[in-house]
Amino acid sequence: MEPYYAVIFTSVQTENTEGYSEMAELMENLAKKQTGYLGIESARNEVGITVSYWQSLEGIKNWKTNLDHLTAQKKGREQWYSYYKVRVCKVEREYEFER
Amino acid sequence: MEPYYAVIFTSVQTENTEGYSEMAELMENLAKKQTGYLGIESARNEVGITVSYWQSLEGIKNWKTNLDHLTAQKKGREQWYSYYKVRVCKVEREYEFER
Repeated sequence: MEPYYAVIFTSVQTENTEGYSEMAELMENLAKKQTGYLGIESARNEVGITVSYWQSLEGIKNWKTNLDHLTAQKKGREQWYSYYKVRVCKVEREYEFER
Repeated sequence: MEPYYAVIFTSVQTENTEGYSEMAELMENLAKKQTGYLGIESARNEVGITVSYWQSLEGIKNWKTNLDHLTAQKKGREQWYSYYKVRVCKVEREYEFER
């Protein structure tokens, strides 16, 4: 499986989250259709963390510049997020536990 | 800042989370004292995501084998987690937005 890539998106929302969950669902469904998409995981409390996994940096770049995604990003900056940070990472090692 | 390292820890809890939050707080405070520690972010809904940031792979390895942390990991496997996955990643690029 390794090496593959992870995009760590951490964010803090504004108080005006109208329309956010619908857009988040749309974007997750759209991301799943992209070439090189491997998976996504999300959780939110005070901070939101979404990690998406990709086969290559090219897949990440294509998703970043997808037109519908760009529209969502703009809306995010204008309305939903007071802060966000994106980290593009190479997964170098992994291990798991299952009961 | 880059390159630095991120450890993505994703987990699913069991129904028996007694003692978990106290241990999580202890471990977070202990992690902060480790050489090369840069920061930590956590959120949990159905899945929990904790990302810790480190200056080097050596710092990550030292933290992984810290004796108190090993005790916590064992307890995690025995009681708190039904599943977890650890990904050690190199942060290659980052950008952020602030309102």
